[in-house]
Amino acid sequence: MLPVASALPFSQALMAAPDSPRGALAREIEKGRDADIARLREWIALPSIAAENRNMREGAQYMAGLARDAGFTGVEVIATDGHPGVFGVMDNGAPTTLGLYFMYDVKQFDPAEWSSPPLEGRIVDKPGWGSALVGRGAINQKGPEATLLAGLHAMRRAGIRPPVNLVLLAEGEEEIGSPHFRQLATHARVLPALKKCAGIFIPACWQGPDGEVSINLGAKGVVELELVASGKAWGRGPTGDIHSSNKASVDSPVWRLVQALQTLVTPDGNTAAIDGWFENVRPLTAREKELIAISAASSDEAKVKQMMGVTHWIDDLPFEQAIERQASQPTVNIEGLVAGYTGPGGKTILPGKAVAKLDLRLVPNQTRAEAERKLRAHLDAHGFPDVEMNVSGGYDPTEVSENARLIKAQEKAYAAMGVKANLYPRLAGSWPGSTFTAPPVSIPATQFGIGHGSGAHAPDEYFVIDSTNPKVAGMSGAALGFVELIYQLAAT
Amino acid sequence: MLPVASALPFSQALMAAPDSPRGALAREIEKGRDADIARLREWIALPSIAAENRNMREGAQYMAGLARDAGFTGVEVIATDGHPGVFGVMDNGAPTTLGLYFMYDVKQFDPAEWSSPPLEGRIVDKPGWGSALVGRGAINQKGPEATLLAGLHAMRRAGIRPPVNLVLLAEGEEEIGSPHFRQLATHARVLPALKKCAGIFIPACWQGPDGEVSINLGAKGVVELELVASGKAWGRGPTGDIHSSNKASVDSPVWRLVQALQTLVTPDGNTAAIDGWFENVRPLTAREKELIAISAASSDEAKVKQMMGVTHWIDDLPFEQAIERQASQPTVNIEGLVAGYTGPGGKTILPGKAVAKLDLRLVPNQTRAEAERKLRAHLDAHGFPDVEMNVSGGYDPTEVSENARLIKAQEKAYAAMGVKANLYPRLAGSWPGSTFTAPPVSIPATQFGIGHGSGAHAPDEYFVIDSTNPKVAGMSGAALGFVELIYQLAAT
Repeated sequence: MLPVASALPFSQALMAAPDSPRGALAREIEKGRDADIARLREWIALPSIAAENRNMREGAQYMAGLARDAGFTGVEVIATDGHPGVFGVMDNGAPTTLGLYFMYDVKQFDPAEWSSPPLEGRIVDKPGWGSALVGRGAINQKGPEATLLAGLHAMRRAGIRPPVNLVLLAEGEEEIGSPHFRQLATHARVLPALKKCAGIFIPACWQGPDGEVSINLGAKGVVELELVASGKAWGRGPTGDIHSSNKASVDSPVWRLVQALQTLVTPDGNTAAIDGWFENVRPLTAREKELIAISAASSDEAKVKQMMGVTHWIDDLPFEQAIERQASQPTVNIEGLVAGYTGPGGKTILPGKAVAKLDLRLVPNQTRAEAERKLRAHLDAHGFPDVEMNVSGGYDPTEVSENARLIKAQEKAYAAMGVKANLYPRLAGSWPGSTFTAPPVSIPATQFGIGHGSGAHAPDEYFVIDSTNPKVAGMSGAALGFVELIYQLAAT
Repeated sequence: MLPVASALPFSQALMAAPDSPRGALAREIEKGRDADIARLREWIALPSIAAENRNMREGAQYMAGLARDAGFTGVEVIATDGHPGVFGVMDNGAPTTLGLYFMYDVKQFDPAEWSSPPLEGRIVDKPGWGSALVGRGAINQKGPEATLLAGLHAMRRAGIRPPVNLVLLAEGEEEIGSPHFRQLATHARVLPALKKCAGIFIPACWQGPDGEVSINLGAKGVVELELVASGKAWGRGPTGDIHSSNKASVDSPVWRLVQALQTLVTPDGNTAAIDGWFENVRPLTAREKELIAISAASSDEAKVKQMMGVTHWIDDLPFEQAIERQASQPTVNIEGLVAGYTGPGGKTILPGKAVAKLDLRLVPNQTRAEAERKLRAHLDAHGFPDVEMNVSGGYDPTEVSENARLIKAQEKAYAAMGVKANLYPRLAGSWPGSTFTAPPVSIPATQFGIGHGSGAHAPDEYFVIDSTNPKVAGMSGAALGFVELIYQLAAT
């Protein structure tokens, strides 16, 4: 569910040559390059897909093996009521502990839609970026995770102990909304270890074409759900599909769904109209607006629009206000509609059922539980008690203080590498970070990384191995970036 | 596009034993039974599917062969701008000429959904009905058509000339909305032949469980179309699918479609709200209401509801008013909705495009051209000029006078066979009959037949061969029914 990249990239930045005190490690990482690529390719060859119950046990065992190889100890596959997680620690005798959040699962894929086999990890040329490894999970999230492990392998080979202790927690259900992740995070062995961490992050290689990255001070929450109108639940209309000529005397569950849907948003489809939706929405602070203004000023609006395939923001807003909206507004989005006949041409039926797949993004101080409750109450109050609401997953929003030690260390690490990093109030996408930021864990949680890839959830997902863009790191540079963060956190 | 059966069946009736003056032909039909079944099975084995451009030339040639074998002369495959039609005549030197409308195409099918191979024509037991031949086209429309041909074969074998001349016109595009049927009907050889006909009918074996049939004095028209909202046409929102987190700053073509749709109907989804839609809608006449009252009084409402899987009519109307609505009201039906991710679970995308598949049923004096024009004007006037309207086919409504000679002959034929037949003002389904009823052809056009089958357009479509229901004809009885009509028309 983690998005490909922040929707709105940031100002231009240059990737400095790594002639820092970490030069020795840079050379060691370069030596391990072939083994690091092979490790990633082998991992991609074993896809764990929770939605298909595919390779889940195998994937957890494999993740445990990767952790052990990288130097973690006490590595354990931890059962949940769903698919298992993996936990391990690396006690380096340091005063500071850093958490690493991994996911070993990947999104479903259809090989027919790919230009090279999705489990092969073939290396192809990506014009403008360099050579890139193509495969399911390449960027979301095995590529960045394997790259962090590459950094740890290099330190191990060089006989250098990381200057922080590490705690690794991996789940296998991220792509289905992390339904049992709280069980993992509050497990008797895991919780005390997490609480020791100065913060936790998921490796993420999201540099834009100008090398830019963002340091996200939180992320929106989300609820994913289906709304279902059916003759069966309604007690009107047909229970199955019948001939469409009967519309003259029989009610339509499809029209019912359309009417229910249109009560959820303003007529332009852009603002939630669910009763009480904005009660707990906290407006942007002056500081958040300031950070957005900085981002807008240093971003290339035309390039952003071109990448997204859009020509106008909502209400034709200027760029800065569009980013403010992106960071501050909850959304009611229709991911998909399915009813009746969906093939080519037509088929004269009156369908017995209609489904809308929605995602609702939430901002502080909304909560997932509040959102579910209010949507149900809204449907009931507007005369649609029969429209079923099937929630498949979701997270609360997260917030991280810009004064958190992990954030300060990220700023220093990016600066040390000459990477332009903008503080950004809130990722418009969502991730299970609230499991860490909320009690009982209560630690800062965010993303970190340089390097680049794209195509999460899509065909031809890729991760750049050797970058031809001087502003963007390849795999080795990205591995060094993770090492840099470890050193900067120790020193912060 | 022809519906399986009239939505609302009629009063109970008994199928009399055929000890009429046509007894000799009844025995001759019984003798030909095996050959008649074999002829139907062979025809089903060659599916012509216009939407897939499958076996169209072969299907037309096969249809021509069937016509020649049954005694038609001058049989010709006639080219159109689409798929060809077949035309033939049988000049019996009679003062009266009867038209036969056939379709040689069938609906698409997925063998995986069938309990026996859809091209095999396997004969299975259908509890409550008898033995039935299962195959694509069994009831829609090869079964009834082959049954009529069986009657002609029997007459030929018995050396009996039909007491009317026959004109046969078959098309191969009925299942895609008959886009070139007018070309066929107005062809230089065809038009003069059709204009000589006292009327034309499509063989239809739609007896209900109590043996009831209806004599439909017309049928609704229809327009089938897709409404498409897209970022491309709108100039807002994304041109392709993008990550759903962008909903906060980017417009949604899916919400656009939902908003456009909900302007088309009243909030209950049951009455068209398209500007000017009812201008030319003719209310039911006193006679039409009378016919409906007779139908309602002699029908079993509970059984009708059970067959359709509905528990309430629109507005909880009593049965008679529900049938009035069915006969008199134009409809705006959503056949299907397709947008974004339609698979299991969710996928966090903001789709670039959304499609609604609609069928609009039309009543006299609406026309297809008027409906298309008004829907476009409505969308434009309500601020949706970008919502594309792609019409795939349609027909005008048809009307036939109850005093037409063909209708009188049908009443007599059913009465002679002891079949309860209700005059019904208007089939709520649609068929290309307006090509016949409108200028320049201008002849009565309707359906006729006894016998039973069901499952048009669905898996396991079937046609009853030997009926175990004493009120319902099997194939031989249905063949005799067609012969009966021929005699009754000659005598009317």
